[in-house]
Amino acid sequence: MNPTIELLKSHRSIRKFTDQPVSRELLETLIEAGQAAATSSHVQAYSVIHVTNPANREAIAELAGGQSYVATCGAFLLFCADMKRPTEAAERTGARVVRGMTEQLLVASVDTALMAQNVAIAAESAGLGICYIGGIRNNPQQISDLVGIPDHVFPVFGMCLGYPAHDPDVKPRLPVEAILKEDTYTDDREQVAAYDDAMHAYYQSRKGGPKDTTWSRNLTPLFDTKLRPHMREFLVKRGFEMK
Amino acid sequence: MNPTIELLKSHRSIRKFTDQPVSRELLETLIEAGQAAATSSHVQAYSVIHVTNPANREAIAELAGGQSYVATCGAFLLFCADMKRPTEAAERTGARVVRGMTEQLLVASVDTALMAQNVAIAAESAGLGICYIGGIRNNPQQISDLVGIPDHVFPVFGMCLGYPAHDPDVKPRLPVEAILKEDTYTDDREQVAAYDDAMHAYYQSRKGGPKDTTWSRNLTPLFDTKLRPHMREFLVKRGFEMK
Repeated sequence: MNPTIELLKSHRSIRKFTDQPVSRELLETLIEAGQAAATSSHVQAYSVIHVTNPANREAIAELAGGQSYVATCGAFLLFCADMKRPTEAAERTGARVVRGMTEQLLVASVDTALMAQNVAIAAESAGLGICYIGGIRNNPQQISDLVGIPDHVFPVFGMCLGYPAHDPDVKPRLPVEAILKEDTYTDDREQVAAYDDAMHAYYQSRKGGPKDTTWSRNLTPLFDTKLRPHMREFLVKRGFEMK
Repeated sequence: MNPTIELLKSHRSIRKFTDQPVSRELLETLIEAGQAAATSSHVQAYSVIHVTNPANREAIAELAGGQSYVATCGAFLLFCADMKRPTEAAERTGARVVRGMTEQLLVASVDTALMAQNVAIAAESAGLGICYIGGIRNNPQQISDLVGIPDHVFPVFGMCLGYPAHDPDVKPRLPVEAILKEDTYTDDREQVAAYDDAMHAYYQSRKGGPKDTTWSRNLTPLFDTKLRPHMREFLVKRGFEMK
């Protein structure tokens, strides 16, 4: 294992940060590292909003489900899927542009995620800790309004960055045999059962205090209700019609 | 700049590979590095199919739009968004599960992309080159049938991996000032114009031979027709109804 792979395998979400600020120079380096990720047809369908306004940071922390570290971390970034820039650029060359295709939603979401993951790794390589904030999809319209996100752009997730002030455990992942399949998709319920045992043991001994659960049981609240049922209407309204 | 950030910034797609195989041990290391990426609520909504069958590799190369390196690269991986494993795991604990939410499509697509980008970086850190293959969405149903992808799972993109047999240029990206916005979304057409000039110069001098175009002009074929218009129906049929 080389140092980069060791770094990748040591990731855990950081939610407590020291007061040390993230310098502007470092922030730009991280974004440039993000932009170096692969992008579908070189479309670069993303924008990143660096939220520094304290009132907006507090508001987003609340709107994301009461995640106070959105307000307290060294830097908070909103990663947006951006189909406005490339479609308008094509229009300025005279192209008649089609918007709202499902494929465009996928391209922009995947482009944004690849870019963000490079930012995350660059940040961790520089001694920062990070935490993705999917909770911004709890209230995507209000958050879009706060920072003036226009049509054909939407916030996919946020990211807290800063110098770590705690040292949480690395959470075990599913067995590689469940994820990596040879030539055909195969059932993996045996590996899931073994993983449930491993996660039960992890939850008993983790630094954050014991919890009597498994991976499978933890998933129930994700699936037994309509998770973020406003997302379809929100996306359609912002010009991602999923045609 | 540390070595990890240098690595991130040196990415370019590799499409010509030596005959040196990718060892099974390395492949598993890469997937484990992928799994270490952040995942929404720890759902790990992805599977990776390692396609080794030569006939299937040839077929996928054709179905992805005639990308011969899918057949010739050292290892070819299909990255799939997987909502089957977690929803069925929750069901086995007695949960009544809701499927087909738009939010679930986003969660699984983003989880898959974060994971894949870690695989890409781990691969590049080990001396491999990679190329994402979005072209598998040209014919996602046929490719799903070839490798037995079930409902609630869909192939988001492929990835070619192998030891590089060419050394293409790193393509310039949009100016960081266009991507990184302070507190509010701001117009970036000036930066796009400057970038069009930079890309025009790049296309004139690149190793692959000169081409008289800009970034904005290159985008026209992406947007002046309905790109991959089958994606909506495909996803709905496979259980991603975007409700």
